[in-house]
Amino acid sequence: MPKLPVPDDLAQLIESVPPPIPEAATTAAVRQKTLTKPPGSLGRLEELAIRLAGMTGELVPDLAVKRVFVLAADHGVTDQAVSPYPSSVTGLMVANFARGGAAINVLARHGGAEIVVADVGVGTDLGDLDGVVDAKVARGTADMTHEPAMTEEQLWEAVRAGVALVRVEKDLGLAATGEMGIGNTTAATAIACALLDREPEEMTGPGAGLPEEGVRHKSAVVTAALLVNRPDHGDPWEVLAKLGGLEIAGLVGVILACAARRVPCVIDGFISTAAALVAARACPPCTEYMMAGHRSAEPAHGIMLEALQLEPVLDLGMRLGEGTGAMLAMHVIEAAAKVLGEMATFAEAGIDTPPEE
Amino acid sequence: MPKLPVPDDLAQLIESVPPPIPEAATTAAVRQKTLTKPPGSLGRLEELAIRLAGMTGELVPDLAVKRVFVLAADHGVTDQAVSPYPSSVTGLMVANFARGGAAINVLARHGGAEIVVADVGVGTDLGDLDGVVDAKVARGTADMTHEPAMTEEQLWEAVRAGVALVRVEKDLGLAATGEMGIGNTTAATAIACALLDREPEEMTGPGAGLPEEGVRHKSAVVTAALLVNRPDHGDPWEVLAKLGGLEIAGLVGVILACAARRVPCVIDGFISTAAALVAARACPPCTEYMMAGHRSAEPAHGIMLEALQLEPVLDLGMRLGEGTGAMLAMHVIEAAAKVLGEMATFAEAGIDTPPEE
Repeated sequence: MPKLPVPDDLAQLIESVPPPIPEAATTAAVRQKTLTKPPGSLGRLEELAIRLAGMTGELVPDLAVKRVFVLAADHGVTDQAVSPYPSSVTGLMVANFARGGAAINVLARHGGAEIVVADVGVGTDLGDLDGVVDAKVARGTADMTHEPAMTEEQLWEAVRAGVALVRVEKDLGLAATGEMGIGNTTAATAIACALLDREPEEMTGPGAGLPEEGVRHKSAVVTAALLVNRPDHGDPWEVLAKLGGLEIAGLVGVILACAARRVPCVIDGFISTAAALVAARACPPCTEYMMAGHRSAEPAHGIMLEALQLEPVLDLGMRLGEGTGAMLAMHVIEAAAKVLGEMATFAEAGIDTPPEE
Repeated sequence: MPKLPVPDDLAQLIESVPPPIPEAATTAAVRQKTLTKPPGSLGRLEELAIRLAGMTGELVPDLAVKRVFVLAADHGVTDQAVSPYPSSVTGLMVANFARGGAAINVLARHGGAEIVVADVGVGTDLGDLDGVVDAKVARGTADMTHEPAMTEEQLWEAVRAGVALVRVEKDLGLAATGEMGIGNTTAATAIACALLDREPEEMTGPGAGLPEEGVRHKSAVVTAALLVNRPDHGDPWEVLAKLGGLEIAGLVGVILACAARRVPCVIDGFISTAAALVAARACPPCTEYMMAGHRSAEPAHGIMLEALQLEPVLDLGMRLGEGTGAMLAMHVIEAAAKVLGEMATFAEAGIDTPPEE
């Protein structure tokens, strides 16, 4: 069966993603050893700074302009009672983002980042909400237990919406993914099962707070969606179209557009990581520009991170989404770059270079 | 054998440490459930905010004024070749702090905190360094493999120096501990062995970067110090005096003074946690005001944290000290308080309260 044909504009975007610049990473690694600290003593900060140099080609990239791309959409699969919350909460939460009252608003203010909220497929009419980009592709996806969640056209339109959000940002230093969509852990679980050849029993978790019985039901719903749609596990785009998530498709666009511009992108939790899996399969070099913000409390998140070979920066038992974990991780990631850029060297401090380890 | 008599001023300080305020913690826990997020979905952030309320008695304490207390001193035990760096590096690093070139300077600037650097016992003459508090008790400790590291007088003077640093800080919202002292992982290891009844083989790690052979030698040095001094394991002050660390004694003072003022105090890595162990034994209620900033790469740190029943906020493989791990954790801790204070409630967002878990 032929794979879903990728439209020219997106195929070009994918081809344009450059490899990292190993010379810059090497220069960063060499400089780490000259700074006034025992070699290796800053642990993950040193590794992150070296990766950032490789991504951007700059020894000390300026990450001051930070954006969290929070994409929202609804899911037809909520008809199958997979969430303790009704679909209408998606739109209400987008309004909450617009008013600055959600967790991601608080954390972004605290961390000196701005959030870019976009409606890619919210089921309700949001009217004209201040600060919310209207990129609505459809009023939610179809119920994937009956039919494909998205049409091909909807898929590409949603991906393009994500790409466009990144493209208008000038001087973008550091990006993060975030999302809101009642039912989207179900879609993300189905995507992960297909792409990683895993069983729904193994991958399904409580999401926003299902009891044990609800998790079993949700797992059965994922099984039904996979049986009805039979996506080609080797085609990330077909998997994404059939199992859906307009906001997940939009995040794939965000991730690809960041990678094409050498902008480091912090992947949030379970749903964002499903988008990262799709992006990684569609465009392997883009994993080089990903960092995992945190380890979600959603049990199967670790399996997805392992497939991407990403080690999360934080592990705080969070499972909210919205980009909250990625946002907190941005502070550590920016710190890593600043340490490399601002610390004195042993020579500057008049300290003899330490013995080699 | 009678325990070391605690001077009146410090005994009064210890007695003045209040218990936390459970009503405030309960109010915080109740409010968490009204905020626009699935209950529990912010994981450790929720727990931290509830603890902060209990410590301070305020639902949303203002943590904006943040200080990292970085205490520096030298160690006679460096005569036993326990570090890859010579003692003279302690003073050079204090000068580096004063010039703003160390890792803790970079991280404090990044996190909006100020550092308070104090010389409690540096071996070299620092002259008049801008921004360094001169609280020198002695030019380093004695070599604990031959004699007690400190006299009783030196012990109390160093503890008082730490207390004084906290007392002059008005409006202190959030404190963190930090230190610099070549040889101080050896002192901290000896203290931990005595207080936790553990063997040096189990507790000794590479510190600033000893090879395996060096770790074995360091473990033998700790064993010798314990044999020569035979401290009463039930007396934290005797343990501290004999196994030393003027900066560790100063940090005990910082921790006690914070607790007495209901100021939350973020404990940094291995050496700071040894100070926290002493403080906890000398004054059990003060553990209520401690948070563990990070899990150090020093292998035995986990044993110390477990004894204190503290779960670290970060785990980034750091092992530098200076307060660097605590400083990064401050961002998460302050975020926890802000989330509780600034998020909209379900009622404000027009969302029906979610079903009880």
